[in-house]
Amino acid sequence: MIKEAIYHRPKDQYAYAYTEKELHIRIRTKRGDVKQVQLIHGDPYDFKGEVWQHQLVQMERTGHDDLFDYWAVSIEPPYRRLRYGFLLKDETEAFIYGERGFVDEVPKDVGFFFAFPFLNAIDVFSPPEWVKDTVWYQVFPERFGNGDESLNPQGARAWGSEPPKPDNFFGGDLQGIIDHIDHLVELGITGLYMTPIFKAHSNHKYDTIDYYEIDPQFGDKETFRKLVETCHENGIRVMLDAVFNHSGYFFEPFQDVLQNGEQSAYKDWFHVREFPLKEKPIPNYDTFSFGASMPKLNTENEQVKEYLLGVAKYWVEEFDIDGWRLDVANEVDHQFWREFRQTVKSAKEDAYILGEIWHDSMPWLQGDQFDAVMNYPFTEASLNLFARGTINTERFAHDITHVLNMYPDHVNEVQFNLLGSHDTPRILTESGGDKERARLLFLFQLSFIGTPCIYYGDEIGMEGGHDPGCRACMEWNEEGQDQELLSFVQKLTELRRTHRVFGNHGQFRIVDVTDNVLAYKKFDSQDELLFIVNPTEQSKSYVLPKAYVGKAVNNLWTGEQQPVAETLQLEAFDFKILRV
Amino acid sequence: MIKEAIYHRPKDQYAYAYTEKELHIRIRTKRGDVKQVQLIHGDPYDFKGEVWQHQLVQMERTGHDDLFDYWAVSIEPPYRRLRYGFLLKDETEAFIYGERGFVDEVPKDVGFFFAFPFLNAIDVFSPPEWVKDTVWYQVFPERFGNGDESLNPQGARAWGSEPPKPDNFFGGDLQGIIDHIDHLVELGITGLYMTPIFKAHSNHKYDTIDYYEIDPQFGDKETFRKLVETCHENGIRVMLDAVFNHSGYFFEPFQDVLQNGEQSAYKDWFHVREFPLKEKPIPNYDTFSFGASMPKLNTENEQVKEYLLGVAKYWVEEFDIDGWRLDVANEVDHQFWREFRQTVKSAKEDAYILGEIWHDSMPWLQGDQFDAVMNYPFTEASLNLFARGTINTERFAHDITHVLNMYPDHVNEVQFNLLGSHDTPRILTESGGDKERARLLFLFQLSFIGTPCIYYGDEIGMEGGHDPGCRACMEWNEEGQDQELLSFVQKLTELRRTHRVFGNHGQFRIVDVTDNVLAYKKFDSQDELLFIVNPTEQSKSYVLPKAYVGKAVNNLWTGEQQPVAETLQLEAFDFKILRV
Repeated sequence: MIKEAIYHRPKDQYAYAYTEKELHIRIRTKRGDVKQVQLIHGDPYDFKGEVWQHQLVQMERTGHDDLFDYWAVSIEPPYRRLRYGFLLKDETEAFIYGERGFVDEVPKDVGFFFAFPFLNAIDVFSPPEWVKDTVWYQVFPERFGNGDESLNPQGARAWGSEPPKPDNFFGGDLQGIIDHIDHLVELGITGLYMTPIFKAHSNHKYDTIDYYEIDPQFGDKETFRKLVETCHENGIRVMLDAVFNHSGYFFEPFQDVLQNGEQSAYKDWFHVREFPLKEKPIPNYDTFSFGASMPKLNTENEQVKEYLLGVAKYWVEEFDIDGWRLDVANEVDHQFWREFRQTVKSAKEDAYILGEIWHDSMPWLQGDQFDAVMNYPFTEASLNLFARGTINTERFAHDITHVLNMYPDHVNEVQFNLLGSHDTPRILTESGGDKERARLLFLFQLSFIGTPCIYYGDEIGMEGGHDPGCRACMEWNEEGQDQELLSFVQKLTELRRTHRVFGNHGQFRIVDVTDNVLAYKKFDSQDELLFIVNPTEQSKSYVLPKAYVGKAVNNLWTGEQQPVAETLQLEAFDFKILRV
Repeated sequence: MIKEAIYHRPKDQYAYAYTEKELHIRIRTKRGDVKQVQLIHGDPYDFKGEVWQHQLVQMERTGHDDLFDYWAVSIEPPYRRLRYGFLLKDETEAFIYGERGFVDEVPKDVGFFFAFPFLNAIDVFSPPEWVKDTVWYQVFPERFGNGDESLNPQGARAWGSEPPKPDNFFGGDLQGIIDHIDHLVELGITGLYMTPIFKAHSNHKYDTIDYYEIDPQFGDKETFRKLVETCHENGIRVMLDAVFNHSGYFFEPFQDVLQNGEQSAYKDWFHVREFPLKEKPIPNYDTFSFGASMPKLNTENEQVKEYLLGVAKYWVEEFDIDGWRLDVANEVDHQFWREFRQTVKSAKEDAYILGEIWHDSMPWLQGDQFDAVMNYPFTEASLNLFARGTINTERFAHDITHVLNMYPDHVNEVQFNLLGSHDTPRILTESGGDKERARLLFLFQLSFIGTPCIYYGDEIGMEGGHDPGCRACMEWNEEGQDQELLSFVQKLTELRRTHRVFGNHGQFRIVDVTDNVLAYKKFDSQDELLFIVNPTEQSKSYVLPKAYVGKAVNNLWTGEQQPVAETLQLEAFDFKILRV
């Protein structure tokens, strides 16, 4: 047994309170190295120097990646306190693993074990309940719908009359979203996420001028209020984009500092390394990346905090929005986000707080800051298998197992699973224009753990490369829309809505990756769905895992009911969803 | 190379901001498995798909335990942002390790690397500066000095006239501490930690009746004010014990719940599982351990929070205390401690917050809760080697290296290093009465990283077993005091005070553990002290590591100056402190 490969640490994703009563415990071991793991556990104040009576429970090997096996178990300590260790066995050896290392026999001192000292309810990570059942739709407002021509910026192009460029405008606005709410409803959307709508300079509006104003090209506060109301009436939640890491160049306080330098009342609103401000060769003030027009806000400054927390509260309280997506969330201080959470949740207890972080985000997901982050590791793995075909199903299984083991289960359930956005090429473009591949992306996204988000237009087969290519005007002409793909996505959102285990109410396991086919299941104690997907251009004769052979099943996708044969035929990019 | 043994994760002790400019990066690898580790690093927005120019720095192997080698390096990213990975080499292989795993060549995507997205000053773990230079003295007030006989509880025994029992009293009080302040000053003490002094029932006062009152057996608020002033005049900080996990049985709100059950206005101040309250067989309300007389306080309740945070503030603001030691800190919710920190630090910016936690405490030491925890792993290792002789110096080196790698360096510098307390047998008793062993305990404690604490009476050779044995009346009769041991400890505290690298201003490394001798060094860029300790009953001819042979050195302990020979003679329990 490779002891050095074994890892566990309480209070990250390896041991956490899943509910106010239930603890989840996980451990990882070198792949294929350990045959059995049992959890030894008991109350810290009831330890007699031997294994607690009847407190040895089997852990399940829930999956593996290229390096590690992952094991998990769920328990309910009667007094909400726990000491625990692991009994690890292979063919020849057995060890007990605790905080103090590896031993052959249970030590006399309870301090040997790992501790989960007390399950305090307030510390339980508690994302809003509704997020688990939400299907999001991301809109880039300048390009979704032009509902009020009178607001068009000067020089706006006719809708869709030319390709998107870094600096052209087409007059998309809030009324345009209201006008097309039926499209969202028909698609089965229950959450609308808009990139920034506050007064700003560019077409993407990430360069805020005034956080308290709607950009006049998009409409006014009354239109926004109507948009939120329309969404709510149609069962759709609304999430806005908070660009709090940096302001835009034309944000008044920054303009004041540019003009008045050290004499400016706002000089501490930014991180100025020396006065007067210089933009070249590298700005002498902190910025997002090295962009002189995106000065980093000093979120440690009390006035800045008051201003931004005021913004956070204002749009929730005055307009009843349901969530904030936080741009460049990882570069803002943790203390600010803690206060942000308190502010937002005081205004609306079940608001959703979503951080834009591309890397390991556990430090932000301890319950005191965010509810979730944007799940780019999911995106990457999905695109690699289904769109690009650059990895096989075995590697995909490793990547997805790794994704699920990065965070606690209740984080995973509300992770923002996107396939693309205004920052990435569109999925059909990633798929080389192959709609079969795009279909499988949607299939996996909408049957996986997490809260899926569809980027506007992807559902009708729009194409577009990297920014600005991916920001084209929404195609409203039905002939230009792929109706077949649209129906396909509609059917998936409906299955997610109508079958508990299809979405977040089922557990996920990889079942098989033989012959570059992907088989995975979603299940709870009563129900099980088996997904069999062929992500390749070759047709396959797929040999079903023995456990399923001969069982009467319902093909959830086609409605056929029949016992399953040992071998299933799968055409290129074909799939089956079997209800066992 | 055993890849599975390699571990790193940002924002725990493996990567943290040591100052507002400096990041510390650590990694662990299987012991003896990797020959060289280099840090690859650069600005996240300045990555061109190859190793950043000139950004490959050597990491130092700072030590090892039985399973792992630990490597560390310190860097200052110019724009306070960092992406980084590790180049690991053994004789035959080389890999680059990043957040996404192991590769042979630098990937094109900066997302492969680990991220320390931004070094925000407010997130830097910042314990009070003074703690690094403090030598603490722990007093159990009922047993240190009787300065006011008029306060003696009924039935109090004459000072030291009988052994300490769970329920006898001797009349120790606050005036008794004031009267003996000279003893602390002469010993070189700069911090006084008292176990609880608030109104309570028992002699140990951990069963609080009123958090706003001094126990009348100890004195009144005026005496306490005089004690704090006397300490401050003598350069001694004062830390009190906050028992906030649970109250005492006679705490009025609990009495109210006992009497009025569900009708009590205080019913939500505790965690009552069902009414009416029952104490047996197991209390039907949450308690400390299973003790019916120690009802757990509901620190999630707003009123309880207001009450306890009021207490925390009151004693700081009204009496100018310098720190709080938090009893059973691990069982109270994190959210409470975050608010506790804000409350206390608002009242006194450089107050010290010390949690009683016996196990891995990283979740409490992220900068938002505690400054330090009681360093029991240090205690255990030290007692095992020097007092009990149950481990050899190699094992000790492993344990101590492990202790130093549990937390960031700035946590280690303020960790509360105790050898014993009112909860453990006295060190001389642990040493089987052998004062040579006790001396070495003090030597190691007072030359190690952290903030050392001497338990009252240990410095004069008092003995005593487990509670209540370790709580005897302080021996004030000089004939009963071991003056030699006292002078020894005095000399150590003076060396710690007068030589920068002796204490917290030097780094610590194990140098050698050959032949059950312990050699370690403390050093900075200008100075180096080499400690050579024989913790055994055998005299040793110790062969000095080559690097030191022939160097002119000063024996800091004896004052002798001479070049060092290849072989040093060490009697049983002998030691040398060489200034190189």
